[in-house]
Amino acid sequence: MKNQQQYHPIRWEEEEEEEERDAESNFLQQPLLKRDRTLSSNHLALVGAKVSYIESLDYEYLMGFLYFTGVNFALTTVATVLCVMFAPTAAGPGIPEIKAYLNGVDTPNMFGATTLIVKIVGSIGAVAASLDLGKEGPLVHIGSCIAFLLGKGGPDNHRLKWRWLRYFDNDRDRRDLITCGSAAGVCAAFRSPVGGVLFALEEVATWWRNALLWRTFFSTAVVVVVLRTFMEYCNSGNCGLFGKGGLIMFDVSDVTVTYHAMDLIPVAVIGVIGGVLGSLYNYLLHKVLIVYNLINAKGRVYKILLSLAVSLFTSVCLYCLPFFASCSPCDASLSESTCPTTGRTGNFKQFNCPPGYYNDLASLLHSTSDDAVRNIFSTSTPSEFHPISLLVYFTVYLILGLFTFGIAVPSGLFLPIILMGAAYGRLLGIFMGPYTKIDQGLYAVLGAASLMAGSMRMTVSLCVIFLELTNNLLLLPITMFVLLIAKTVGDCFNPSIYEIILHLKGLPFLDAHPEPWMRNLTVEELADAKPALVTLCGIEKVSRIVEVLKNTTHNGFPVVDQGVVPPPVGLPIGATELKGLILKAHLVVMLRKKWFLTERKRTEEWEVREKFSSTDLAERGMKIEDVVLTENEMERYVDLHPLINKTPYTVVEGMSVAKALVLFRQVGLRHLLIVPKYQAAGVS
Amino acid sequence: MKNQQQYHPIRWEEEEEEEERDAESNFLQQPLLKRDRTLSSNHLALVGAKVSYIESLDYEYLMGFLYFTGVNFALTTVATVLCVMFAPTAAGPGIPEIKAYLNGVDTPNMFGATTLIVKIVGSIGAVAASLDLGKEGPLVHIGSCIAFLLGKGGPDNHRLKWRWLRYFDNDRDRRDLITCGSAAGVCAAFRSPVGGVLFALEEVATWWRNALLWRTFFSTAVVVVVLRTFMEYCNSGNCGLFGKGGLIMFDVSDVTVTYHAMDLIPVAVIGVIGGVLGSLYNYLLHKVLIVYNLINAKGRVYKILLSLAVSLFTSVCLYCLPFFASCSPCDASLSESTCPTTGRTGNFKQFNCPPGYYNDLASLLHSTSDDAVRNIFSTSTPSEFHPISLLVYFTVYLILGLFTFGIAVPSGLFLPIILMGAAYGRLLGIFMGPYTKIDQGLYAVLGAASLMAGSMRMTVSLCVIFLELTNNLLLLPITMFVLLIAKTVGDCFNPSIYEIILHLKGLPFLDAHPEPWMRNLTVEELADAKPALVTLCGIEKVSRIVEVLKNTTHNGFPVVDQGVVPPPVGLPIGATELKGLILKAHLVVMLRKKWFLTERKRTEEWEVREKFSSTDLAERGMKIEDVVLTENEMERYVDLHPLINKTPYTVVEGMSVAKALVLFRQVGLRHLLIVPKYQAAGVS
Repeated sequence: MKNQQQYHPIRWEEEEEEEERDAESNFLQQPLLKRDRTLSSNHLALVGAKVSYIESLDYEYLMGFLYFTGVNFALTTVATVLCVMFAPTAAGPGIPEIKAYLNGVDTPNMFGATTLIVKIVGSIGAVAASLDLGKEGPLVHIGSCIAFLLGKGGPDNHRLKWRWLRYFDNDRDRRDLITCGSAAGVCAAFRSPVGGVLFALEEVATWWRNALLWRTFFSTAVVVVVLRTFMEYCNSGNCGLFGKGGLIMFDVSDVTVTYHAMDLIPVAVIGVIGGVLGSLYNYLLHKVLIVYNLINAKGRVYKILLSLAVSLFTSVCLYCLPFFASCSPCDASLSESTCPTTGRTGNFKQFNCPPGYYNDLASLLHSTSDDAVRNIFSTSTPSEFHPISLLVYFTVYLILGLFTFGIAVPSGLFLPIILMGAAYGRLLGIFMGPYTKIDQGLYAVLGAASLMAGSMRMTVSLCVIFLELTNNLLLLPITMFVLLIAKTVGDCFNPSIYEIILHLKGLPFLDAHPEPWMRNLTVEELADAKPALVTLCGIEKVSRIVEVLKNTTHNGFPVVDQGVVPPPVGLPIGATELKGLILKAHLVVMLRKKWFLTERKRTEEWEVREKFSSTDLAERGMKIEDVVLTENEMERYVDLHPLINKTPYTVVEGMSVAKALVLFRQVGLRHLLIVPKYQAAGVS
Repeated sequence: MKNQQQYHPIRWEEEEEEEERDAESNFLQQPLLKRDRTLSSNHLALVGAKVSYIESLDYEYLMGFLYFTGVNFALTTVATVLCVMFAPTAAGPGIPEIKAYLNGVDTPNMFGATTLIVKIVGSIGAVAASLDLGKEGPLVHIGSCIAFLLGKGGPDNHRLKWRWLRYFDNDRDRRDLITCGSAAGVCAAFRSPVGGVLFALEEVATWWRNALLWRTFFSTAVVVVVLRTFMEYCNSGNCGLFGKGGLIMFDVSDVTVTYHAMDLIPVAVIGVIGGVLGSLYNYLLHKVLIVYNLINAKGRVYKILLSLAVSLFTSVCLYCLPFFASCSPCDASLSESTCPTTGRTGNFKQFNCPPGYYNDLASLLHSTSDDAVRNIFSTSTPSEFHPISLLVYFTVYLILGLFTFGIAVPSGLFLPIILMGAAYGRLLGIFMGPYTKIDQGLYAVLGAASLMAGSMRMTVSLCVIFLELTNNLLLLPITMFVLLIAKTVGDCFNPSIYEIILHLKGLPFLDAHPEPWMRNLTVEELADAKPALVTLCGIEKVSRIVEVLKNTTHNGFPVVDQGVVPPPVGLPIGATELKGLILKAHLVVMLRKKWFLTERKRTEEWEVREKFSSTDLAERGMKIEDVVLTENEMERYVDLHPLINKTPYTVVEGMSVAKALVLFRQVGLRHLLIVPKYQAAGVS
């Protein structure tokens, strides 16, 4: 599999033109080869010795460094400037906001066309700039944006006229579409169709119904079929590097998994440490993000400067650290084309080593993230990586991961955590080596899984994603075991990383579990503590509506007729009739259409149906300030009845907030009316 | 993998003792070998010719037939008598009832200890009796029974005293436990942990929360770890045939999956035909079950006779049909130990053929179901099965499947459908052979998947189950494709097989989608059409409660005080106060405890808390007829307040039934009060 990959080793090249790449790889290879020749002609004693090139860091290395840093810097600048100037919502992974959207919290400009374009270009820039971030989160966001735009029929200003797309232009279908989009995103990122479905179910969605299961499944099936078709087409070399590496990303299926009941102990240890490290990572990231929020709040220039500083720091770390690593001799059993590698993808990077030697740290730091994962996951190479190199790698990626995530570029959390986890797992495998027979590559896989579960607290979806990434079904039992332990341990310390980010962003996420205090508070007491309620009459004066709309921020108003005269048969005098609920948006539409009456009388439903189309009522975001009304019009009346939701969900005043919350969340409500326990007629 | 399996070919043997098995296999092998020798000594021209043994059906074959039929008959008798006499609920798969239970419909005696034991023994008997039924459904039921009993702390008469188990003794935890149990059952049946989780999510559960995801996942993880541990222990031959065949049941991972965009067309054809066949199967099974219901309703004896008749018919079909098949010469490339096989498990059964030949129909009919699936899934053997043999096999299993499912033994639907589907797929593969490069074994896998989806209408769970059964990740894209097409086609004709069974059993399953008529009916109109409502006062006379309990079948009663005197401040005279809802079960407990008052007065909550424990209130199924009350006691009063649910969920009378149904189902309600839209106080 690996020797099919003929693309170049250094990450930024993927974004350059073919000519540039050739020129550059010549530029990089030539001095190295020359240097190697010089060395070997000097007959230096090299075998097994630690060879340090620091003193010979001459002009060529400096040029290489400047080139590397310069390109990274330029790419970061593109990504961050786009993000900061055009679509601030495109920064970060976007998953918490999608999660919040599906919970009922709409972040403005989250799914627009601008956000989509900036996210795509920015993500390419940021990943290509060797920053320690993944493309997975952004792909989920991209999938959701596309789903949102499809549901709308296009961006707000250039809607398609395709009629049937309008049927999806409602809250419920939009929610479903975005769920499908996020599943498709994960599927595209990991080539994991079932993992995508489960990710949408476990992490993203708040409401789930059975129909969504096969809909998300259908989305991911389409993604996989399209992906496979493209790969097949590209196999003949028509489209550069696309799809090299096959449908399965980190194939470890050739490994015979041998483990015994006793091996569950080291596996449990991986899980426990992974859980602790994951929650520690969450804790540290939380602190860093607080600091970053302060910096970012100072203005756009600070945001850009922060990104650029991180980019510089990353370039320095990635380029310079391998110089400190020792060269290791290639295993004699490996062919020359496998070890060492120069100027192309693969394991065992030569970098500054003489022929026949490789630099293990360069094999990790000078690769694309995907290749780095493949290298760490590689099995049956027990002595490939020196423990110190792995420790350095882990530390560097821990620091870079913490400081990269919060900058203003599209960034994903998956890959940095997988990389860290894989390094930690392999390191643990080296130390545990004498006690177990599990391969170090498997330790790396399990380490990655444990850190993911420790930080993100997903179980089934991670399990399936890892299954589909590694294509080794025999790993399933221990992966499940590790994931559950890491999640349980992590849950002892803090919530999942996405919940932390949600909380930091101040999104009012409606949790599934009511807080303990909610049990002891009735909805009546809660309503008393909130801004006073405003009710409208069934037929209301225009001036009153305008006043109410201008002075309150409520999005819905109960419509109540007090002291119904004459009272219906058998009812006491003074009964109150609950007419229903009217939305602020509908009130504004009514005023804008100037559907006014000169006296208090009811209008027929059909009249209204002629006047208002469903698209009028679906529109959101209009403001009362945009409606101009004359003095005369202010004195007129509006019949609210036709636009009232006549059957809002209600709870009795004595109900606990916890119980009302369950209703609110389960049914997916926006408004919930509280009715008194005293009725004017018999309860039936 | 396959040549590791040294166990015996004929299904019933698995349940017999070792000695019996040896004796029997000798008995079966000897005459066959003798016959072969006779034939070859007569120098009959055999190569490629159709050899018919019908005329030579002599004493030994007759004895074999009698033995086969007799053992099958005896095993069926055990299974069906147990089911009919002790636990009628143990018949069938149990999945529809579990589905109904999780939807809120409790079938009596569904999860008792007796049912569990009968299900285990009966399932072993029925599967061993060569009946065309699977162990999957019963395993799901067994898992749920165990979960239920664990939640209860044991069977009703022998509860464990382990205190903390009591915490699970409530409706909600019981529901969760049964969901986990069903996931564990699927996992045990298919060795498919993620498939089990998804099956519980997609097919079984009505309410799903995120916590359930990792709980079911934990259950299946434990199943897999235990399974693996046992397998490892048994690898040394300590426990007979347990766990032979490895963790993956029908391994096709050694197949290089090569398919191109053009191959999507035959794959789509498989899906379409699978969908049509699946829905046809549902239709026919529905008709057969209606007839069976009429027969079964006539009495126990008829039930038993029906089972035995089916057993006889099955034995005759399975034993006699291979005689009509022709012998095929073994492929020269196969070693002698692979083809033909006699007296042990494996493909290429010799049966009545001379050495070096095999009977392809016997390879399917004279194997355990698992082996039969393995044989049909076997790849790179394009000419192993003759199309006519496959057609015969498909037809036989179609007929057997239809007539076996409804008999009074524990039976699963999965395996019969997989077998039929695999035969159909392979048959299609033979006809499509010239046009595609897909292996026939893959056609068989896809055929099985398509028929399952066409009949059961599951998508993601089937996809994962097939992934975990076959261990070939590259198959995933086309499997998804086939499943979605088959499901869509099937949905055009009729509902899924489980829904049909649910409907036949008359279980009032609460569907996710409201019927169209529900939109045009208000809850008030629905309530008017139902038996009249009975309300109680907050402090009620004993005689009235007894009267109400004896004359109605309601399980809950609204507690309402009409004409509150004096009315609370600001309220009109004659207002009605909704106190809440009291359950029938709680009323009976109150009467049985004789917590009576001589006058209408309120009691303190703490007094009641002393009198009633939570176990009292959790008890169900007590009848008012069991409570003996004197004339004097009947005149006393009971204060209902302490046991009232003070905050029942309510809807306003004008709400449509469809909307109320959404609330009812989403929140998982048992009772929903309808309040009038006229309030005695302002709505807040």
